Amino acid sequence: MRPVVISGVGMIPFERRDEDSLVDMLAYAGLRAMDDAGLGDRPIDAVYVGNMASGLFNHQVSVASSLVDRLNLLPAAADRIENGPASGGSAIKNGFLAVASGYCDVVLVVGGEKMREVIGPKSTDIVACMTHPEAEYIYGVTLPAMAGMFARLYMEKYGITREHLADVSIKNQNNGLLNPYAHIQMKITKEGILTHPQSHINNPVVADPLHLYDCCPVSDGAAAVLLTTQEVAKELGKPIVMIAGVGQATDTQTLQEREDPTDLKAVTLASEKAFTMAGLKPGDIDVAELHDAFTILEIAESEHVGFFKKGEGAKALASGDTQIGGKLPINPSGGLKARGHPVGATGVAQVVELVWQLRGEAGERQVKNAANGFSLNFGGFGNNVLAFVLRRKA
Amino acid sequence: MRPVVISGVGMIPFERRDEDSLVDMLAYAGLRAMDDAGLGDRPIDAVYVGNMASGLFNHQVSVASSLVDRLNLLPAAADRIENGPASGGSAIKNGFLAVASGYCDVVLVVGGEKMREVIGPKSTDIVACMTHPEAEYIYGVTLPAMAGMFARLYMEKYGITREHLADVSIKNQNNGLLNPYAHIQMKITKEGILTHPQSHINNPVVADPLHLYDCCPVSDGAAAVLLTTQEVAKELGKPIVMIAGVGQATDTQTLQEREDPTDLKAVTLASEKAFTMAGLKPGDIDVAELHDAFTILEIAESEHVGFFKKGEGAKALASGDTQIGGKLPINPSGGLKARGHPVGATGVAQVVELVWQLRGEAGERQVKNAANGFSLNFGGFGNNVLAFVLRRKA
Repeated sequence: MRPVVISGVGMIPFERRDEDSLVDMLAYAGLRAMDDAGLGDRPIDAVYVGNMASGLFNHQVSVASSLVDRLNLLPAAADRIENGPASGGSAIKNGFLAVASGYCDVVLVVGGEKMREVIGPKSTDIVACMTHPEAEYIYGVTLPAMAGMFARLYMEKYGITREHLADVSIKNQNNGLLNPYAHIQMKITKEGILTHPQSHINNPVVADPLHLYDCCPVSDGAAAVLLTTQEVAKELGKPIVMIAGVGQATDTQTLQEREDPTDLKAVTLASEKAFTMAGLKPGDIDVAELHDAFTILEIAESEHVGFFKKGEGAKALASGDTQIGGKLPINPSGGLKARGHPVGATGVAQVVELVWQLRGEAGERQVKNAANGFSLNFGGFGNNVLAFVLRRKA
Repeated sequence: MRPVVISGVGMIPFERRDEDSLVDMLAYAGLRAMDDAGLGDRPIDAVYVGNMASGLFNHQVSVASSLVDRLNLLPAAADRIENGPASGGSAIKNGFLAVASGYCDVVLVVGGEKMREVIGPKSTDIVACMTHPEAEYIYGVTLPAMAGMFARLYMEKYGITREHLADVSIKNQNNGLLNPYAHIQMKITKEGILTHPQSHINNPVVADPLHLYDCCPVSDGAAAVLLTTQEVAKELGKPIVMIAGVGQATDTQTLQEREDPTDLKAVTLASEKAFTMAGLKPGDIDVAELHDAFTILEIAESEHVGFFKKGEGAKALASGDTQIGGKLPINPSGGLKARGHPVGATGVAQVVELVWQLRGEAGERQVKNAANGFSLNFGGFGNNVLAFVLRRKA
């Protein structure tokens, strides 16, 4: 396989963006990545769009064909890649393979979702369309409901408390305050969401034991990366960040069919595959972006990726190890919790953050001397997971 | 790039399949391709699903994650690829790149669509979601309407008559009678659809000048191919059919923005790319599957691919050159017209037919001594096109 370099990255602030269509957002993010790479009039061979549900959210399909025209990149190839909340990760993987195979030299990958176009609970219903139609969806199971059941099991098994969950929430919202692209720009405290007599009003139950501040917001947004060969990357002159490892793994669609529902097998397998390909170990990683759609997931993933032993993730978190400045900063961007989770955008936004970190361009939230980064994009309820290892080339 | 072989193919009859869900259909077709390859318990590395609009047709997303579990292929990677009516072609292209890159050794590609789950005109609306939202969709333009306008221009420019269009329809429905997988199993005559005093009742206008028998039906269905390396293919022992050329090209999303709307630039570019990669010319092709969603498209594509000069396609058709037994049989399967057009399935079904033809397994519709095959999968209204050149290895 040819080595693949990320030469450009870009995103737009995640927020409620009533004035922009989905394709507008994809175009803005794509242009920023092209500009960042200094691509000039060099042609792009293919465009990949990561998007979960443009049909249901926006009554539009074939958005990749729309984007390639809008960006004046005709006749470049264009495909949309869908893998639920890991659509962005899958889009990067397929863009990676296009360059790695030698079929393409320059590929633009854009992830995006416009979720706020639908009103109220309809967005929760659309997201629930990724669950099993006969075994889950018809019984009214939503993603927050699954996360609630998973959290209960995980907390009982490993002695995790609501205070640990609050640690994730507070860390990530504090990090989000340092990230101009983050949707939720609000300082929260343990008192406000947990111990104050009014905290049940500020922070109501969503799916017990998960409360409002344990869940990511519903956001609009887009993010993009420009992938190319080492040769082209050298000509472009940007700092070289390699996609050193790519892993993907699947698990049973329903949580109920897993022998141990607290065991996120696909997270472990996808991570192992990415580390093996990169020739690195979890201990070599300097900064990580994990998929904290719910606070419990950051803790569980940090263990399944191999950063901490099972049952040790919450302790590492409580001791400050995963803060910016700690031993292994996790979600310096603010994660899905604060940056937001426009589903198709997330896997790409995670990689954009890592590139900024590895280049030393992350501003106030910069992790010092970060050379190796890791991201995990969690599709379904852990049934289709993408992992990436990124490496700065000296 | 590593050479890529198609070692297994399978499909289910296209028809109205009320009893099957989308994932049921994908699973049946996938199993048939795995069986055909004689895969046994050899692992599959990745599954690609070509599907246009499972969200809108079936209120379900992440169908690739569902399929990989249903087929007991965990923890294989799984992604859904969407490119409108060329979703199947794009899925094959991405599966091809996964093997060509060296990242995967065995890949299952399944295309499918369950369109009859929605009632009446809603399927036309869902298909129209691929048009430009501000410049086309809001004005009520549907795909048949676009095809009607295109047909009028093309017929006037090149002197094509409704009789030529009927030639396509009759040829393809006759071929479909020889194909047990075809949705429409019905002999039609020029008298019945064109000259009989009652023909305006049998064959009413859909979008002038196109009538009912100029349009493909709305079908449910799925088709699958198993892709692998030459080494694995030799072990499996099936006749070797190579994917020798892969081309993709895009054009303006709206027809109105094209300098000459009768010029299908993306068809020409995608075909040229596939031929160049394969080291073959249009004249080397023994059998072709073209995207006759509307009769006019088979004629126009046969010229833009390079089989005939502009304006000569209808004459070649009328002279019988594109019949089974003619100089260049086109759509021996019955094409979209007779086989049906479950949109995500079509690009894969075309390749399945070519493999049957190149292996000599096409039964009554067999094209003699076919060694080189070509397929064209037409996305949007010609704004995102896939072309494949297949070659039988002696």
